[in-house]
Amino acid sequence: MSLPYKYQTLPIEKVFRDPVHNYIHVNHQVILDLINSKEVQRLRRIKQLGTSSFTFHGAEHSRFSHSLGVYEITRRICNIFQQNYSSEKLGEEGWDDSQRLVALCAALLHDVGHGPYSHTFERIFHTNHEEITVAIITSPETEVYQILNSVEAGFPEKVASVITKTYPNPQVVQMISSQIDADRMDYLLRDAYFTGTKYGTFDLTRILRMIRPCKSGIVFAINGMHAVEDYIVSRYQMYVQVYFHRSSRGMEVVLEHLLNRAHELFPKETAMLQNTAQLLIPFFKENFSLQDYLRLDDGVLNTAFNLWSETSDLILSDLSQRFLNRKPLKSCRFVPEVQDNLISQMQQIVEKAGFNPTYYTAINSSYDLPYDFYQPKLEKHRTQIELQQNDGTLVELSQVSPLVAALAGQEQGDHRFYFPKEMIEERLQNNYDLFGETYQSFASHIHNGELI
Amino acid sequence: MSLPYKYQTLPIEKVFRDPVHNYIHVNHQVILDLINSKEVQRLRRIKQLGTSSFTFHGAEHSRFSHSLGVYEITRRICNIFQQNYSSEKLGEEGWDDSQRLVALCAALLHDVGHGPYSHTFERIFHTNHEEITVAIITSPETEVYQILNSVEAGFPEKVASVITKTYPNPQVVQMISSQIDADRMDYLLRDAYFTGTKYGTFDLTRILRMIRPCKSGIVFAINGMHAVEDYIVSRYQMYVQVYFHRSSRGMEVVLEHLLNRAHELFPKETAMLQNTAQLLIPFFKENFSLQDYLRLDDGVLNTAFNLWSETSDLILSDLSQRFLNRKPLKSCRFVPEVQDNLISQMQQIVEKAGFNPTYYTAINSSYDLPYDFYQPKLEKHRTQIELQQNDGTLVELSQVSPLVAALAGQEQGDHRFYFPKEMIEERLQNNYDLFGETYQSFASHIHNGELI
Amino acid sequence: MSLPYKYQTLPIEKVFRDPVHNYIHVNHQVILDLINSKEVQRLRRIKQLGTSSFTFHGAEHSRFSHSLGVYEITRRICNIFQQNYSSEKLGEEGWDDSQRLVALCAALLHDVGHGPYSHTFERIFHTNHEEITVAIITSPETEVYQILNSVEAGFPEKVASVITKTYPNPQVVQMISSQIDADRMDYLLRDAYFTGTKYGTFDLTRILRMIRPCKSGIVFAINGMHAVEDYIVSRYQMYVQVYFHRSSRGMEVVLEHLLNRAHELFPKETAMLQNTAQLLIPFFKENFSLQDYLRLDDGVLNTAFNLWSETSDLILSDLSQRFLNRKPLKSCRFVPEVQDNLISQMQQIVEKAGFNPTYYTAINSSYDLPYDFYQPKLEKHRTQIELQQNDGTLVELSQVSPLVAALAGQEQGDHRFYFPKEMIEERLQNNYDLFGETYQSFASHIHNGELI
Amino acid sequence: MSLPYKYQTLPIEKVFRDPVHNYIHVNHQVILDLINSKEVQRLRRIKQLGTSSFTFHGAEHSRFSHSLGVYEITRRICNIFQQNYSSEKLGEEGWDDSQRLVALCAALLHDVGHGPYSHTFERIFHTNHEEITVAIITSPETEVYQILNSVEAGFPEKVASVITKTYPNPQVVQMISSQIDADRMDYLLRDAYFTGTKYGTFDLTRILRMIRPCKSGIVFAINGMHAVEDYIVSRYQMYVQVYFHRSSRGMEVVLEHLLNRAHELFPKETAMLQNTAQLLIPFFKENFSLQDYLRLDDGVLNTAFNLWSETSDLILSDLSQRFLNRKPLKSCRFVPEVQDNLISQMQQIVEKAGFNPTYYTAINSSYDLPYDFYQPKLEKHRTQIELQQNDGTLVELSQVSPLVAALAGQEQGDHRFYFPKEMIEERLQNNYDLFGETYQSFASHIHNGELI
Repeated sequence: MSLPYKYQTLPIEKVFRDPVHNYIHVNHQVILDLINSKEVQRLRRIKQLGTSSFTFHGAEHSRFSHSLGVYEITRRICNIFQQNYSSEKLGEEGWDDSQRLVALCAALLHDVGHGPYSHTFERIFHTNHEEITVAIITSPETEVYQILNSVEAGFPEKVASVITKTYPNPQVVQMISSQIDADRMDYLLRDAYFTGTKYGTFDLTRILRMIRPCKSGIVFAINGMHAVEDYIVSRYQMYVQVYFHRSSRGMEVVLEHLLNRAHELFPKETAMLQNTAQLLIPFFKENFSLQDYLRLDDGVLNTAFNLWSETSDLILSDLSQRFLNRKPLKSCRFVPEVQDNLISQMQQIVEKAGFNPTYYTAINSSYDLPYDFYQPKLEKHRTQIELQQNDGTLVELSQVSPLVAALAGQEQGDHRFYFPKEMIEERLQNNYDLFGETYQSFASHIHNGELI
Repeated sequence: MSLPYKYQTLPIEKVFRDPVHNYIHVNHQVILDLINSKEVQRLRRIKQLGTSSFTFHGAEHSRFSHSLGVYEITRRICNIFQQNYSSEKLGEEGWDDSQRLVALCAALLHDVGHGPYSHTFERIFHTNHEEITVAIITSPETEVYQILNSVEAGFPEKVASVITKTYPNPQVVQMISSQIDADRMDYLLRDAYFTGTKYGTFDLTRILRMIRPCKSGIVFAINGMHAVEDYIVSRYQMYVQVYFHRSSRGMEVVLEHLLNRAHELFPKETAMLQNTAQLLIPFFKENFSLQDYLRLDDGVLNTAFNLWSETSDLILSDLSQRFLNRKPLKSCRFVPEVQDNLISQMQQIVEKAGFNPTYYTAINSSYDLPYDFYQPKLEKHRTQIELQQNDGTLVELSQVSPLVAALAGQEQGDHRFYFPKEMIEERLQNNYDLFGETYQSFASHIHNGELI
Repeated sequence: MSLPYKYQTLPIEKVFRDPVHNYIHVNHQVILDLINSKEVQRLRRIKQLGTSSFTFHGAEHSRFSHSLGVYEITRRICNIFQQNYSSEKLGEEGWDDSQRLVALCAALLHDVGHGPYSHTFERIFHTNHEEITVAIITSPETEVYQILNSVEAGFPEKVASVITKTYPNPQVVQMISSQIDADRMDYLLRDAYFTGTKYGTFDLTRILRMIRPCKSGIVFAINGMHAVEDYIVSRYQMYVQVYFHRSSRGMEVVLEHLLNRAHELFPKETAMLQNTAQLLIPFFKENFSLQDYLRLDDGVLNTAFNLWSETSDLILSDLSQRFLNRKPLKSCRFVPEVQDNLISQMQQIVEKAGFNPTYYTAINSSYDLPYDFYQPKLEKHRTQIELQQNDGTLVELSQVSPLVAALAGQEQGDHRFYFPKEMIEERLQNNYDLFGETYQSFASHIHNGELI
Repeated sequence: MSLPYKYQTLPIEKVFRDPVHNYIHVNHQVILDLINSKEVQRLRRIKQLGTSSFTFHGAEHSRFSHSLGVYEITRRICNIFQQNYSSEKLGEEGWDDSQRLVALCAALLHDVGHGPYSHTFERIFHTNHEEITVAIITSPETEVYQILNSVEAGFPEKVASVITKTYPNPQVVQMISSQIDADRMDYLLRDAYFTGTKYGTFDLTRILRMIRPCKSGIVFAINGMHAVEDYIVSRYQMYVQVYFHRSSRGMEVVLEHLLNRAHELFPKETAMLQNTAQLLIPFFKENFSLQDYLRLDDGVLNTAFNLWSETSDLILSDLSQRFLNRKPLKSCRFVPEVQDNLISQMQQIVEKAGFNPTYYTAINSSYDLPYDFYQPKLEKHRTQIELQQNDGTLVELSQVSPLVAALAGQEQGDHRFYFPKEMIEERLQNNYDLFGETYQSFASHIHNGELI
């Protein structure tokens, strides 16, 4: 007679070799089954960093490997909590290990609703990866749901509620989602490893030694303050050096225009799009099912671009080629509001040079990117990082770390105006014709990377 | 007035951040233009290790990053040769730096003809990535050709001849292709980094300190013998631990059967395949152009599998799902010839259980994989590794290293029989029906991973 | 006929395997001879971090390995300068490679005057390692002088003037001594490596890509700003986490009291000290020659402590044992001036418990430690770090980096009161006698590591 | 009321930052007390690799850090054994966790009897570090004994018997001492880290995943075979590249001659040696106590050499200077027996050149070094490495690994003849005098590093 599914462990621990955490350890049958589900396997076909791999060629890792990593960090936190701070010893300040399975499932599944190039795709087709994550977990048609529901009735909804932060146990919620959670810790380390930058590297082992459960969630021992500081600085460095990189954003605006163009063409070019992008049709119609969504991946989009690159619509085919062959729009910094008029002028020059400014220029602000920096003073603030002093009282990190206060007090990022590379090519400016003049006048407005 | 294209260097050296070599350094306009060509950019969409990433989830790196790495190692070798062993000093024993550009181009382009899941694809559709590499380099229609031809007339052919090993300068040829060339050195280090195994790691800096040009090609200083040994051992470890991994091969056989099935269905299912795999039609017809080939990538194949997974042919749809959702065939080792009859019996049992053995069993020998181990005694032997003694005489590596002799003298690898996982699932064996018996009889033939 | 000594290079480059820089490369005969000189070899017997190895057991590296490291970074800077920014191309803004040898010699020798546990030793015996460095370089009796003088007459003085910062070429001076020089870059990386902390790690390769000579010295390209920021943060982390560690300082105060005691005992215990510490006599007399100084090393001091640990003076023997057997004084933070009276009271309690407060208590401020943090606004400020913008103008780092501004604006470190561990041992406080009360009253003044 | 000492754990786990294992974790009060004992602290003053740090300048780590490392690996093995293979589950095939404390103590103390430059010192003064280890553990006068004896009566003897391999539990014995024990695993990793070579690096985590207790000791799962192979190859590489390095051995022979000379001088130079090397007198007399031995460390010897370098005996002072200032004897390989006559001739030439051959030449065979390579076929063989197959049967490693068989079957190492560097200095050979001829005749017998 076998144990209930929920308690089934593997006869021999299964491991996955991982370059960041050395090994991912799996002991629960439930977790192994989730990893093998088709909704999770699909994450292998979606890059973690989208267009960033065009700038950092090593960063070709998938959302699958990140999901395993978040699971693994969560597992290690559970182990530490259970060993040192169990609720058996500490009551409600401590960790109740019966929460482990829900935490591990939520960690593994927290990104399961991501699609290809999510950030851009969502803006154009009005999908929402967080809602889809919840849908995948709670819809009876998915393998993920079947597995979770075999644990016990209502379990899928429990896991989903961790992700929507409505789960009653704040320790579980904050493990997966807070200013210093398993998600952020994994992606910083992983993105640093695969880009080959050193900036995202912080001392995970030391952070994990300093993490503590408490009644209100998760805190850090005060003598780990410098380790937490180091994590915050790593995050800052990854933002300014990797996530906000101007070339990756130059590819992102190409992608956005390209998808927009296809979307707009749909009513009159239905047949062509049907033939070249069968799996995207439900999204052009803005009427898609969960199954439609689950068939998308990076390859599906790239294959559409591949086919579109030979289509008769010149804008669609040109943008498709620019994307596939990595021809990002170029950019300069500008000051919003103050320079809005100038932007209009620049767009007119671009138009004069023969480029439709709707598809060949763009405004892009790194502030819009989906990375939240640590700003405890924001009105609708996110979870704070709190340190636990020797006598048990808590203090917010930026109160004791001038370094963090300095980083938290300022906006990071920039506003950029994007345009075709041709506008600033020396070769073209030297033409002794009208176009030459056009290019020259454009270039004269850019100095030291800034609009003037 | 500007320099001839061939001599144009970038005003500021351009670098690409690389996790393996820290930075890839580009100084020549020609190299930058080649990297930006669409044929090279296409390599971003083809994984370096094919189905191995199903086993090692970190190994999602592309042939693009490997190509940059081979270029970089070649560049470093050229620098060392020019600094210490120039032909100006050493005559024909030395390095003639006017060979640098042809070496760099050949290094960067040596894999440009690879397609998606090359090894398997080639067997089924009778393509050949080496011939296609040469075709890309020497066909006037490609961007790569245009760039190379701007260097000077005949230059594309020169570069191609390095790859076909007919180029007259053996130093250049052996940099790119020999037992210890820039290609192998990069892929061992890179595959080790991305899989997260340590085995492939050897001391590149030390190897580069010991490398020497000579009249007949490239040799190593005798006092670097242990560093070369270490490289050979790393190679051995990567083969047995990574490249020959039974699960990756279990995915490969699924892929092979899947493509075979589609190929065979083509005559009668032409319309369906036209609708779902437009870009593969020329290959089903075995009549493809270079442009047809250049439109292929991993995403194109995966998208076809995605669409096939809902097609009416049950074998095609099932195999497509198995591939996308990572359901490898399982395997056991067997002894060819001796156990051939037993294999036939096993296939019959598989058939009894309801699986068509043509598509659900396979024989796979790691000896067929495209990795050559170091075997200097083979009749049609590959380049040897030679060490230069203090008095200038050469000695073949396995003559002085018992460690290498031990590795070189034996065949590495194994022969495996693949079958559906269902055949050995405990759950199914315990059914009290005819099928239960079938499964039991199958399982009884496998002991300790071997066929008995 | 051979070249003048100054131009002699080694027939084959000599390398030293180094865990931090991989290899130290030596090409000049002069440099190899300096490394082999007895004054430089002596640095093998002096630990780089003094008492810090009592806290970080891996940090047992010597000043010898640091000296090689500083040399190597300087060599790499010279290579980059010569390749990209030579004065042949850039005039006085550029690098004049005839300065290379003086720079390399100064780099290798910049710490040659250090003695055992320098910081403490100097305070007690009024030696000065910088003056002694100059003396070693410019005294005809040393091997170092002999070698330098063979380069050309006056060369020793040139090298010394780099170290005293009176050398006319500011590029050479700032390579060896500025806010971001080869010295600091090596010790941060090296100390991080050997302590096993990750904090000191910054991206040396990237910093070296961004470094530029200019007329006034050395600056950094503006687009390397974040790499320089990262270096500053690493430095901050190393100070607060390693260099200012309270336990290392607890060993340092033991050492200081111990040497002080011996010094004070000298007049009446001359014979005993003569027998046990022959090589220290000139220092007790405060009348020492350069040769006397050059015979000192960590082992000489430790051997004296070894012998003193069995001497009849109880304080000297007890402190010697505490030092050898790693029994640091314990400590708490306090507020100078405000709590000076309280300190006196505490010292009285210590005395009541039987410890002479002169030798068993101490005040130690990390501000006195020989590490300068980056504070460009200090009146007598140190060299600033300047960034070069695209148009060539310079800007001071903290003007553009809020992160650095935050770190530069504040004092780092703390003031600590040190006392015997016995004062806070639970075991002793629980004695039901007068001593028990004494210990209790002492302990009651310490809360959360602070004096109250 | 407190627990018996044996069961006392620290209120908060104490950690030591370690560059090799990240953290050393201490939970038992007994272990912390042992670390703080003066006999263990003394190991801080003894280098792990003796004269090897003259060749690899980073390798300045002490026997203290190695001892912590061996303890830590043992602790990890105990954790894995207790978690997965406890005797509660597996009976006598499993691990009995009541053995943990004796294993940890033995691991920490296994090298506590080492003295300065042990290998050489022992040969001259007939000390034996293994016997002294046992003496330290079992002599009531030591702090180590006091601590162990507080655990329970007879406990010191238990710990000692693990080291002498007479302890009845073979699992405990083999953890500390076998072909793949915590000792070897730590020193390979640690020596690789500090020398900066990569050769000693193997995959510790994977090895620890594969290690298993069994009735007869410790074995490895068969599917970890390649990880064990990798460890064996790392060991081989460290031997040939680091431990057998000819320059380190060139310093060792200087040291040996130097100590021999002092020893021989003792009868007639007693007063001088008394004044300069007080702590060595008991050893010159070959009548020393345990306390005499415990006062020795590297600094004591170096300080004696320092004082001897100005003594009137020319051989003693010259050899002392050669040692302190790193002037190794040079060497060439030779064939014992076959070339013994030639060696005699060479020694005569050395004598002609003015060097006493007893003190200025030497024969050194790496086979005499205290490193045992894996040779399962030796008559008096050491513990074998055994692999456990799926059905529980054991197979000796070299039976299944041709790589290991190749390494195990051959003798590694070489025989060298050492002589003064002056004998082969070009400068001296070019003298047009009798000495010139002498040097020339010497040099003519050496070709390609071999005696001819």
